[in-house]
Amino acid sequence: MILTSEKFNLTSDALLKKAKPYLDALVDFINTEVNEFEPEIRELTAYCMKPQGKKIRPMLIFFSGWKDDSPLQPDLVRAAAVMEMVHQATLVHDDILDDASIRHNALTISKKYNAHVAVLLGDALFSHALHLASNFNTIEVCKIVSKATRQVCSGEISQSLKTNDVNISKEEYYRIIDLKTAELFGASCKLGATLANYDSKFIDAVTNFGRHLGIAYQLFDDLSDIIDSESNTGKTLGTDLASHKFTLPIILLLNKLNDADRLSFSKTLEASKDSSAYLIKQLHEHDIISKVMQAFDSEISLAEKSIKAWSSLQPYPYLMSISNQICTLANRLRS
Amino acid sequence: MILTSEKFNLTSDALLKKAKPYLDALVDFINTEVNEFEPEIRELTAYCMKPQGKKIRPMLIFFSGWKDDSPLQPDLVRAAAVMEMVHQATLVHDDILDDASIRHNALTISKKYNAHVAVLLGDALFSHALHLASNFNTIEVCKIVSKATRQVCSGEISQSLKTNDVNISKEEYYRIIDLKTAELFGASCKLGATLANYDSKFIDAVTNFGRHLGIAYQLFDDLSDIIDSESNTGKTLGTDLASHKFTLPIILLLNKLNDADRLSFSKTLEASKDSSAYLIKQLHEHDIISKVMQAFDSEISLAEKSIKAWSSLQPYPYLMSISNQICTLANRLRS
Repeated sequence: MILTSEKFNLTSDALLKKAKPYLDALVDFINTEVNEFEPEIRELTAYCMKPQGKKIRPMLIFFSGWKDDSPLQPDLVRAAAVMEMVHQATLVHDDILDDASIRHNALTISKKYNAHVAVLLGDALFSHALHLASNFNTIEVCKIVSKATRQVCSGEISQSLKTNDVNISKEEYYRIIDLKTAELFGASCKLGATLANYDSKFIDAVTNFGRHLGIAYQLFDDLSDIIDSESNTGKTLGTDLASHKFTLPIILLLNKLNDADRLSFSKTLEASKDSSAYLIKQLHEHDIISKVMQAFDSEISLAEKSIKAWSSLQPYPYLMSISNQICTLANRLRS
Repeated sequence: MILTSEKFNLTSDALLKKAKPYLDALVDFINTEVNEFEPEIRELTAYCMKPQGKKIRPMLIFFSGWKDDSPLQPDLVRAAAVMEMVHQATLVHDDILDDASIRHNALTISKKYNAHVAVLLGDALFSHALHLASNFNTIEVCKIVSKATRQVCSGEISQSLKTNDVNISKEEYYRIIDLKTAELFGASCKLGATLANYDSKFIDAVTNFGRHLGIAYQLFDDLSDIIDSESNTGKTLGTDLASHKFTLPIILLLNKLNDADRLSFSKTLEASKDSSAYLIKQLHEHDIISKVMQAFDSEISLAEKSIKAWSSLQPYPYLMSISNQICTLANRLRS
């Protein structure tokens, strides 16, 4: 069951068509910015900033600041480039930590070059994103972006410190994904609505929408990492488990085990020849996939509720459609 | 021979005494800021932001913006905290890449925790520095800091890509240290003079002073990494060589070798039981230490020349004294 309203279910194609002038302008803008990097690292920068990915954060910016009759707003494009660059920086660093080989169907920076270069390139992308943020007329963009970025790092560090902890609670997991994903989704919506000069109450509402959507998206992404196929996702899967990061499906499974079994969980996984197959069987046996999807639905519901009072505003149908797209994406995981 | 003018040689103690209200305010400010980090990473942040190091960049900020009769200028303290946080972030990341164990006589973050945490903590420090930079009345601070930070990363990446390259030229080496060190030294001076509302021509002059001082400092630091003792420096030495980063002393030595010897240089180093002793002997035989110190003197001279026309301005004697302190530091390496 999908909780989103059918009324606003623009197809993925229709939504992309609407966003196309912005997405094209974003590609052009990023290509120009790549040339602002020192000559020594332009090729590297171009490699990891080439058009790819689902562009969820840019879409949230464009549609949170959407005005049907307005010509293309360059500030929204620049803000999208900032967020995309911050997001790519976190991916470059994530891929080192996860020892991942493939991202967007291509070698990760840490595999194509090496981990040293990847650490530094991530830093350079962060710095340039903040440099772009300092080119707005208002200091508000710098404030939003730098705070969100620090929270993302805090979330990632918390997760890293909880590695291998079989007693990690559901609350601790939610706090981690709130920092590491909800924050950037919320900040994207906030930037869009702020730059388009929407009412401050709508800005709060849409930020809240973004946060819940971010949590839903991370719940989907973490489940996908365990049960999806690489041909579906175009990236290395099983990385959370390989690095002993326990996400919601594993936490719910651990809760079903007695103390002894919980402590031997990591060993059991390592001992089984195909830990992924073993784990998926366990998740099905304990009906955990549907429980995670319930948690996903609940966040989608909260997201949509956040902006319900603003249904007469122009961004509303598009934001609802983004929410629906994420539901469609997640539906393939339902058992 | 030291080229700096004796006239302005405030002793290290006298200079520190003058800077004390600012240095104390900096410690207080940073301690307060540590509490702005998410609770999960406060302890880690406090660990790597505890008062330590030579505080060269903060001193450059304080004295580039110095006004004898003015009460303590909080903007200079905040700018110093920004630069110190960026600097610490680069150190945390450097120590992963160099696999260093000791920094300021304590375990590095990557050894005390792990490399994952160190990558992310560096990111969090970068982000928070930029967040602080967004709290000034002027967007100029964000611009200066984010650009300088990206250049530092570019320099580090260039150096990483040149690892193991026995054909690296002196020009390539200078370009690397210009990006990775001169930039932050120059930006520190620029911030200080800008925030104190000095004349734009003095701002340019003092930025130039900082850049040359930065190059001199890096020349000293790279030589120290090869011939100094850990008890003198309080940090792991020999890291450049261990990671096959060839700095000026090695480049000058490589220039003395014929093609065959140059290609076998890395192997010769690895084959010798104590590569450090072997290398120091080679550096002495080819009179390279004094050549590096000549390059150092020449940069100090250029630095001091940059601000000569501003000798009537209040920052002048203090900046000259900082230059002298760096000379004193480097003098122990003269053979």
